[in-house]
Amino acid sequence: MDRYFAPGTNHLFVPGPVNIPDHVIRAMNRNNEDYRAPPIPALTRDLLEDVKKIFKTTTGTPFLIPTTGTGAWESALTNTLSPGDRTVSFLIGQFSLLWIDQQKRLRFNVDVIESEWGQGANLEILAEKIAADRAHTIKAVCIVHNETATGVTNNLAAVRRILDEYSHPALFLVDGVSSICALDFRMDEWGVDVALTGSQKALSLPTGMGIVCAGPKALEASKSAQSVRFFFDWNDYLKFYKLGTFWPYTPSIQLLYGMRAALDIIFEEGLDNVIERHSRLGKATRLAVEAWGLKNCTQREEWFSDTVTAVVVPPYIDSTEIVKRAWKRYNLSLGLGLNKVAGKVFRIGHLGHLNDVQLLGCLAGVEMVLKDVGYPVKMGSGVGAASAYLQNTIPLIPSRI
Amino acid sequence: MDRYFAPGTNHLFVPGPVNIPDHVIRAMNRNNEDYRAPPIPALTRDLLEDVKKIFKTTTGTPFLIPTTGTGAWESALTNTLSPGDRTVSFLIGQFSLLWIDQQKRLRFNVDVIESEWGQGANLEILAEKIAADRAHTIKAVCIVHNETATGVTNNLAAVRRILDEYSHPALFLVDGVSSICALDFRMDEWGVDVALTGSQKALSLPTGMGIVCAGPKALEASKSAQSVRFFFDWNDYLKFYKLGTFWPYTPSIQLLYGMRAALDIIFEEGLDNVIERHSRLGKATRLAVEAWGLKNCTQREEWFSDTVTAVVVPPYIDSTEIVKRAWKRYNLSLGLGLNKVAGKVFRIGHLGHLNDVQLLGCLAGVEMVLKDVGYPVKMGSGVGAASAYLQNTIPLIPSRI
Amino acid sequence: MDRYFAPGTNHLFVPGPVNIPDHVIRAMNRNNEDYRAPPIPALTRDLLEDVKKIFKTTTGTPFLIPTTGTGAWESALTNTLSPGDRTVSFLIGQFSLLWIDQQKRLRFNVDVIESEWGQGANLEILAEKIAADRAHTIKAVCIVHNETATGVTNNLAAVRRILDEYSHPALFLVDGVSSICALDFRMDEWGVDVALTGSQKALSLPTGMGIVCAGPKALEASKSAQSVRFFFDWNDYLKFYKLGTFWPYTPSIQLLYGMRAALDIIFEEGLDNVIERHSRLGKATRLAVEAWGLKNCTQREEWFSDTVTAVVVPPYIDSTEIVKRAWKRYNLSLGLGLNKVAGKVFRIGHLGHLNDVQLLGCLAGVEMVLKDVGYPVKMGSGVGAASAYLQNTIPLIPSRI
Amino acid sequence: MDRYFAPGTNHLFVPGPVNIPDHVIRAMNRNNEDYRAPPIPALTRDLLEDVKKIFKTTTGTPFLIPTTGTGAWESALTNTLSPGDRTVSFLIGQFSLLWIDQQKRLRFNVDVIESEWGQGANLEILAEKIAADRAHTIKAVCIVHNETATGVTNNLAAVRRILDEYSHPALFLVDGVSSICALDFRMDEWGVDVALTGSQKALSLPTGMGIVCAGPKALEASKSAQSVRFFFDWNDYLKFYKLGTFWPYTPSIQLLYGMRAALDIIFEEGLDNVIERHSRLGKATRLAVEAWGLKNCTQREEWFSDTVTAVVVPPYIDSTEIVKRAWKRYNLSLGLGLNKVAGKVFRIGHLGHLNDVQLLGCLAGVEMVLKDVGYPVKMGSGVGAASAYLQNTIPLIPSRI
Repeated sequence: MDRYFAPGTNHLFVPGPVNIPDHVIRAMNRNNEDYRAPPIPALTRDLLEDVKKIFKTTTGTPFLIPTTGTGAWESALTNTLSPGDRTVSFLIGQFSLLWIDQQKRLRFNVDVIESEWGQGANLEILAEKIAADRAHTIKAVCIVHNETATGVTNNLAAVRRILDEYSHPALFLVDGVSSICALDFRMDEWGVDVALTGSQKALSLPTGMGIVCAGPKALEASKSAQSVRFFFDWNDYLKFYKLGTFWPYTPSIQLLYGMRAALDIIFEEGLDNVIERHSRLGKATRLAVEAWGLKNCTQREEWFSDTVTAVVVPPYIDSTEIVKRAWKRYNLSLGLGLNKVAGKVFRIGHLGHLNDVQLLGCLAGVEMVLKDVGYPVKMGSGVGAASAYLQNTIPLIPSRI
Repeated sequence: MDRYFAPGTNHLFVPGPVNIPDHVIRAMNRNNEDYRAPPIPALTRDLLEDVKKIFKTTTGTPFLIPTTGTGAWESALTNTLSPGDRTVSFLIGQFSLLWIDQQKRLRFNVDVIESEWGQGANLEILAEKIAADRAHTIKAVCIVHNETATGVTNNLAAVRRILDEYSHPALFLVDGVSSICALDFRMDEWGVDVALTGSQKALSLPTGMGIVCAGPKALEASKSAQSVRFFFDWNDYLKFYKLGTFWPYTPSIQLLYGMRAALDIIFEEGLDNVIERHSRLGKATRLAVEAWGLKNCTQREEWFSDTVTAVVVPPYIDSTEIVKRAWKRYNLSLGLGLNKVAGKVFRIGHLGHLNDVQLLGCLAGVEMVLKDVGYPVKMGSGVGAASAYLQNTIPLIPSRI
Repeated sequence: MDRYFAPGTNHLFVPGPVNIPDHVIRAMNRNNEDYRAPPIPALTRDLLEDVKKIFKTTTGTPFLIPTTGTGAWESALTNTLSPGDRTVSFLIGQFSLLWIDQQKRLRFNVDVIESEWGQGANLEILAEKIAADRAHTIKAVCIVHNETATGVTNNLAAVRRILDEYSHPALFLVDGVSSICALDFRMDEWGVDVALTGSQKALSLPTGMGIVCAGPKALEASKSAQSVRFFFDWNDYLKFYKLGTFWPYTPSIQLLYGMRAALDIIFEEGLDNVIERHSRLGKATRLAVEAWGLKNCTQREEWFSDTVTAVVVPPYIDSTEIVKRAWKRYNLSLGLGLNKVAGKVFRIGHLGHLNDVQLLGCLAGVEMVLKDVGYPVKMGSGVGAASAYLQNTIPLIPSRI
Repeated sequence: MDRYFAPGTNHLFVPGPVNIPDHVIRAMNRNNEDYRAPPIPALTRDLLEDVKKIFKTTTGTPFLIPTTGTGAWESALTNTLSPGDRTVSFLIGQFSLLWIDQQKRLRFNVDVIESEWGQGANLEILAEKIAADRAHTIKAVCIVHNETATGVTNNLAAVRRILDEYSHPALFLVDGVSSICALDFRMDEWGVDVALTGSQKALSLPTGMGIVCAGPKALEASKSAQSVRFFFDWNDYLKFYKLGTFWPYTPSIQLLYGMRAALDIIFEEGLDNVIERHSRLGKATRLAVEAWGLKNCTQREEWFSDTVTAVVVPPYIDSTEIVKRAWKRYNLSLGLGLNKVAGKVFRIGHLGHLNDVQLLGCLAGVEMVLKDVGYPVKMGSGVGAASAYLQNTIPLIPSRI
């Protein structure tokens, strides 16, 4: 019996780990297998081919690493850079902060461009730095596509344009943890050298797989990168890819079958439809926030995130109380405000395998919690604003027409 | 891959089969077992003891029959009555109609008391018949506690009072399919002789178990009842109860473990809290219907059902279209109008393992469908009316305080 | 935590319920669904078509009834016969005994042909009775294809030949519970009028679905059969078949998806290969019994069953002790001796989703139990005899060549 | 449908990943959860306390890292050592070889003590080196408790005695991947400073969790160790342990619940009984090998492993063919010979959640494969030798007495 039992389903609206489709839960409901017998290599071969599609790359080489997003970051950095290398990184929230911390502790020379939390990466300063860097001391530009702590989406195409404008050879490393498979992401078109995500985000799997995709320039860089590494070393993977056995160490059998099911679902819906669905759910959430008379932590529309919305609460309310209460009274899981915005924002994650009615339930739940904590919300206002928009834009489910 | 794949979860709001708790799905995720080895009898012994609690009986004898509600009906009738016996039955909707049909085809002499669909059982006529039946030709009064087709709950205590008033010995047989474990039901206090439900209703299991509980008078009647029966014969069960092996034929191992988990959950929440939760969800649904400007099929408050609400649509709308569209566009499963009310009502099932946010999502979905079919609903109106009530009445989840 | 926990897997070798394939367990690991929405009728339509293949019929009409084998028996009888009708039935073991008991209690006039337990149906006496019955008072010949209690398989083709020889119009009703999908069964070729099985036998599903297949003559008979019936009435199914909704009452969603998966597996292996596999496993078991110096309960080779072997123990051993000890010490589930052969035989079920190594493990386990109870078995003797035969006859797994 | 479908169950006898108990599969059959809400910290707190028992430590600090055994190695090394530090390592098979490779690539100065594959760690040479190292240049002794490639178990108590004899302060780092939870392992008593295992070995979970336990001396060393690390840094864990949130990054919800179930089972059986069970299964396997007339790769009894047996095949047979054929014909998964012993040995893994009858099935399967490849095995000989021993030593299952 579950010690924290509550009637009905848990409504999971943290920005990860996200809801796993039943189809995927079923696929993972299985015993272990010998990973050296033919099925696992055959399965892996297909996954490696298919996973490239969610990065929109044909030239990249994917690595499915038994780790988390943090390990995926480490894989991206240590395979392409040497200690002391200069990186440019943007500090715009908790997750970019953590990545910067990692870069520092892994002994890179991090050039931090900081913005207020709620703003996107300051690309003007990036442009200045790139312009000034005639000597090409900048070895990598590291950017979080979607800052999960504030709900800010950065413009990756613009970063690429800046690098191209100055023909700067810096590697372009992207944390796509809360974006890939949910937001528009184009590895090849945008010249991203390493992109990465985690299985428990928009791919809607359990945690446990860091998915890293390396472009040709990054692979080339890995040959000379001096960072000490073993577990995260791409070379071991590449060696086993050549052998056709694929795994330098034991993978999770369950996650591989789960990933197969997850990709099947994504391709069935169509990746662009998945992205469009996230766009609709993001917009609907923002309409609700507006209807409640609350502010989005994200300061400008150009940065609005379609996977997570950080909602600013009035000063007289502690957003932590909202999150706690949502869980204690409504079995609704919302995201806490982290670090600088702790107590000031709560977050609604709207990514992964999710539909309109689920989101509307969440929004109705948020209204009740807001009322609980003394915010004068008009009941139904946010839900109504969101549903009016959703009803107007949702297509029939293709398989059911 | 699911041929009718849709993003996100299915929102299941038909009045059965209902949502199965994850806890129960896990408990049922298992291989078969030898049902003659000690674990299954031990499990069964406990289930038989515990299931009595959901009937609120200490004197009843339960039977867990591998069948559906229809089979449970048959078990109740054939074990207690003889061909030609006079029964009094109330025709108030599709399920009472079907039970009456069964009574007729099983060769009983059914005295039907018909009401308009949307009304409860006419107990005045019952009183007249009982009063007039000095010869005690009426062998059983058969009543559906909650008519699932119209969302009408009958007053069982009043039936008992009528029988008592005239000291009439007729058996009191109750279809509790969409009531037991969700509505206030008191087998012993109300002198119900046979009560029955199905596993896929408020018990929140898969279909496959008809749960029949027989009081002492019913067991006594079974000794002389002349209806031909074998599969449904209580005597075979009673024989195996005495042997301690419990099963005259093979039970579903999975359903037994599932039932254990389902009862654990119900007792953890507390049966009276479960009933109170249904009361709140029922009220909230009716408030939404009112806010939409629509009518409840149930004509009087005294009959309002807390497990299912049949919503009457305006004449220019086909309710079947609402149900189809809800599924095709919003992955929302609503109940069709049946028989006399086909096309005229759609039904919202709000029974089983369900919470406030789930219901509010459903109501938001219904608003979108109503808009789809041209009904001038104010978006958010029903959800807001419901959530205002729910927020005001929902307790903290005890395990999480 | 399981109250009867034991390390390692349970070895399930009772003749039902049998081992469920992982593939099927996965398919059943799901929530309920609205059975009136399109997926369930579509799924059912395909199942009804495909299930005919395991009966080897193109003219039969299948019914998937939420019941057990006992209910399936009742369905076969009450839909085709009228009270007082004369049936000829063979008493050769516990399950034929139970069916005869049912026939009697359902008020048919049963003409029993009894054989010693361990012998097959006495077809000579049948021939005499058929020959003598010029008036065609015999309305049905009821026979258990495979008597699970003794491991005796009857010759159905011979029954048909007898009926044909005398152009006798009696219905030919077959209990195929422990045969269909495992033994050679040919509904059309053998002119079987009703055949039936249960989901938990060779189909390798959980208990809960009685699968009845009615040929044209049986369907015709159902139009005039006077037996009282409702839950088991084929007419209700036929009515819903015509409507395309298929279900007169709620089916188990999980069993339907499970059946889809089970049939997929059977067709993938090939029904004839499934039967051949059972033939090999049956033969191997008998070789082991011989090597142990023990006797098969089945008295003649022509009756040997390929789904269950009843092993006779010496008089100084109680076979019940063997079954208990197998479970208590080795987590091995064997079948008890029933009724007349209680204490005298134990049974090894070798039907359903099973392979050679599983069976050899079971046989090794039996050797240990035999030693435990004081039988002077040579360790490895039975396993060796079986494996020598199996190694010589098993094909490569086609999907893995 | 599984592309490599085969009838019956897969018999998994590779030395990892191993069979997952049904109880654990059920516990993991669940959706994601918010890992910052109270349940996951509460669950983690208990796991961290309970997991110490399988290491037999009260003073150690455990880390449950989302990684594999290879990552656990890296965690042990980088948290306690600085680049250039001298380690002493034993090369006795493929896994010790890989760990040495890791030590080299992580820039430690590895002093390798090599033995023939099939022999244990040469502790005489260790003693010499320790004796000679008055300057304490040796910072760590790294040893694989059980070399999975050859089935060799090293004597850890002897290693401790050597270090103690010379009062040598070197850290004692132990790879317990294929030993902990199966073989006798005593972290505190043997003064092990870091011990580690992987979830997919004797703990019988899926792959994905590296379980590292650090003693006080190791924790102290981590404060000054200069190896660059971030993902594997214990300090981040310790920081979150203090906060009571426990996780520096997202854990796998499913693995945590699975670990709870796995530990519950181990404690239910009793850790010492689990170890005793492995001892019996190991002995039984070796008796079978002997009966077949084949040789154990392990050269001396003192090194025999109770978790894996590497069987040497005659020169005219390719052991790889045995492994392939076992899978292709019998659905039996055996371990390949690796590197130096490729083609020369095949391995039987007998660790994790396994019982006697399972093992005997495997041994019977091996006999069939041996016959297939032309080895003159007497069918039943190995099984008989094993079962004679097992029957004599297995206790009744305590919960079933």
